[in-house]
Amino acid sequence: MSVVPEYFQGFGVDKAENWNKPKLVKYKHKTVGDNDVVLENIACGLCGSDILTASGQWSDLLRDDLVVGHEIIGHVIAVGSKVTSVKIGQRCGIGAHCSSCMKSSCGRCSNDNEQYCKNNGVGTYNAVDKSAGNYVTQGGYASHSVAHEQFVFPIPDALETIHAAPLMCAGLTVFSPIVRNVGYDAKGKTVGIIGIGGLGHLAIQFAHAIGAKVVAFSRSSNKKDQAIKMGADAFIATGEEKDWTSKYDDYFDLVLNCAAGSDLSLDSFLSTLKVDAKFVSVGLPPSKDKYEVSPFAFVGNAGNFGSSLLGSKKEALAMLDIAVKHGVKPWVEEVPISEAGCNTALTRCENGDVRYRFVFTEFDKAFK
Amino acid sequence: MSVVPEYFQGFGVDKAENWNKPKLVKYKHKTVGDNDVVLENIACGLCGSDILTASGQWSDLLRDDLVVGHEIIGHVIAVGSKVTSVKIGQRCGIGAHCSSCMKSSCGRCSNDNEQYCKNNGVGTYNAVDKSAGNYVTQGGYASHSVAHEQFVFPIPDALETIHAAPLMCAGLTVFSPIVRNVGYDAKGKTVGIIGIGGLGHLAIQFAHAIGAKVVAFSRSSNKKDQAIKMGADAFIATGEEKDWTSKYDDYFDLVLNCAAGSDLSLDSFLSTLKVDAKFVSVGLPPSKDKYEVSPFAFVGNAGNFGSSLLGSKKEALAMLDIAVKHGVKPWVEEVPISEAGCNTALTRCENGDVRYRFVFTEFDKAFK
Ligand SMILES: NC(=O)c1ccc[n+]([C@@H]2O[C@H](COP(=O)([O-])OP(=O)(O)OC[C@H]3O[C@@H](n4cnc5c(N)ncnc54)[C@H](OP(=O)(O)O)[C@@H]3O)[C@@H](O)[C@H]2O)c1
Ligand SMILES: NC(=O)c1ccc[n+]([C@@H]2O[C@H](COP(=O)([O-])OP(=O)(O)OC[C@H]3O[C@@H](n4cnc5c(N)ncnc54)[C@H](OP(=O)(O)O)[C@@H]3O)[C@@H](O)[C@H]2O)c1
Ligand SMILES: [Zn+2]
Ligand SMILES: [Zn+2]
Ligand SMILES: [Zn+2]
Ligand SMILES: [Zn+2]
Repeated sequence: MSVVPEYFQGFGVDKAENWNKPKLVKYKHKTVGDNDVVLENIACGLCGSDILTASGQWSDLLRDDLVVGHEIIGHVIAVGSKVTSVKIGQRCGIGAHCSSCMKSSCGRCSNDNEQYCKNNGVGTYNAVDKSAGNYVTQGGYASHSVAHEQFVFPIPDALETIHAAPLMCAGLTVFSPIVRNVGYDAKGKTVGIIGIGGLGHLAIQFAHAIGAKVVAFSRSSNKKDQAIKMGADAFIATGEEKDWTSKYDDYFDLVLNCAAGSDLSLDSFLSTLKVDAKFVSVGLPPSKDKYEVSPFAFVGNAGNFGSSLLGSKKEALAMLDIAVKHGVKPWVEEVPISEAGCNTALTRCENGDVRYRFVFTEFDKAFK
Repeated sequence: MSVVPEYFQGFGVDKAENWNKPKLVKYKHKTVGDNDVVLENIACGLCGSDILTASGQWSDLLRDDLVVGHEIIGHVIAVGSKVTSVKIGQRCGIGAHCSSCMKSSCGRCSNDNEQYCKNNGVGTYNAVDKSAGNYVTQGGYASHSVAHEQFVFPIPDALETIHAAPLMCAGLTVFSPIVRNVGYDAKGKTVGIIGIGGLGHLAIQFAHAIGAKVVAFSRSSNKKDQAIKMGADAFIATGEEKDWTSKYDDYFDLVLNCAAGSDLSLDSFLSTLKVDAKFVSVGLPPSKDKYEVSPFAFVGNAGNFGSSLLGSKKEALAMLDIAVKHGVKPWVEEVPISEAGCNTALTRCENGDVRYRFVFTEFDKAFK
């Protein structure tokens, strides 16, 4: 593994209040295990989770110079002795998880639910990897990344790098609950998507691509035209149209919340579900926030409130395939990675000033 | 319809603070429609909902002398001109709903979800029936009852009246979410049941009858031996055993909450679900109570929180069939219906002093 440098470089945050001021740092990388793959990175998307993590809103920062980023695209430069699924030189991606136990005795790892592994599910950054000496993981605003091959997704040639990156987390996170709830052929199904950001704008596209009727919900009507372009059949500005629920009686097979706040009117959305249908929130507010729900809000239709975490490798590969076939494409703004670039992009994203995903590029210039 | 008396008799509550002091009253009955069936009642179970309604904890009392009770068994004494499914003289039951729109244009009524009808779903008591001149319905602590035939369930001969009564609400309410979530053949599935009362003790029996592995949850260990007799494979006293969740990691296909309070530790139960599984609360606390949930409690397993309302006629008939085949039998305490009997039974039920269902009988003596 002599091609793997002893130290990786990345843009790291020293403490929560400096969440939008990452500095160029060097750090020892995680030991490369028998099933691990090492990428030399070429791009990384900026996910809302990067901000929530770097600013300490989900948990404390578990290490010095935390590097975030988990929509990673790179080229394979080294593989562990047992890796069979990818080759040196191949263009691959890593999402928000980089490892799990992968034991045949693990009901989740052995059933295409490795993202829910309870034995050792490891987030791509700010997570403790028990199988690697409790190394605290580092994300993809970095020169290189290491992940178990189960969490390394080969990228089809037809997808450009900047479009592949946001699929690694945002795309997969919305794709999984959509197909689990309305199937891969969703003709005749109706899906509501709340919050048109990095996740939401891909949710609209994927739900539309598999044939569902899509209603997009946003706080204002600013994003209306663009949502329709993405494939939404209808658009509701929840902050402007107060009695919108009356239009959607007994309507949705799935409502997918991709918004980052907890101040949405949950009861209204629940009232629009079909019998036994679900409201799934992939949007995760700061960990101290709670949603208040009354069992009565669920009684009228046996509705459900739930969440979902990322997706499995099986779903990632299916998603990439559908993205190619149906031309699903993130709307991105490229930013050359650098201290200044990170600062601008993190700040603008926090202010909602991006349509719809920042993708860091030009890694070769930053990490010479 | 000369056999139908102009006035029915029942035990009615004049105001919320007299919830446990119903008095013998007379009232004009609801007009008998073309699809309606009239029963002369012979028994009625006492459901926890009777107390929550009579004491005004769900909504105001919508009429004078409100008669509650919705686990009704009686003999058919009259039928509307279009009734085809039951005959004069037949022993039938009515549960917690007595009517709905039943239009072929109603997606719910035409798809075995008539209990979720939004056009005119009518509760058996304290509900406005739009199709009957806004009559406010009266329950089964009464000489007679009227319901649309869709909500009238023929009782198999093999079931005794006192055992059939609690199946009409308690039985059906737990049966529906159980079979919707783990199927009619639940071998290999695991079901948790919280709160061993009228609903819970039937939930244990039905889940066991269809082959599921059942864990019963109660606040103390008082009901342990009885829960095991009902068919529970394991028992947890949540108030006594603090770290019980560690035993049930990645364990449940369904947790069904049958408890009346909102003070249970929802996050603990959610943490024991398998991926994509559900926590369904049929227990309904006072309407002002809320559960607080964090999306993070659902993220580890894509878990869901939901509710469920009663069951369909199709499910009621299947339930009665399974009750006969598997000997599912409510554990009941008989109380001759009277002002004193209602007072004692309502008070004792509110104090948790019943194992596990009161059933009022001897209607012929009370309503001569
Ligand atoms: N469950 C998972 O596995 C998973 C994976 C990745 C990300 N996430 C979470 O998903 C959420 C969205 O991430 P993202 O990258 O798509 O973020 P984003 O690009 O910033 O988009 C968030 C969207 O939410 C809406 N929004 C923002 N602030 C809001 C507020 N206070 N109240 C209501 N709505 C608000 C906005 O949509 P409108 O302008 O249209 O209203 C915004 O575009 C974040 O919470 C992130 O942590 C979860
Ligand atoms: N969704 C529907 O369609 C539907 C239909 C019928 C009834 N319900 C509702 O279902 C609930 C149960 O009805 P039921 O007739 O079975 O009542 P019940 O016979 O009084 O039983 C309720 C059980 O809940 C537990 N419990 C009581 N108070 C509690 C508290 N403060 N905190 C936690 N647990 C408590 C007790 O079990 P342990 O002693 O074992 O802890 C008790 O046996 C009621 O809320 C009722 O309104 C709903
Ligand atoms: Zn992400
Ligand atoms: Zn595992
Ligand atoms: Zn009831
Ligand atoms: Zn209807």
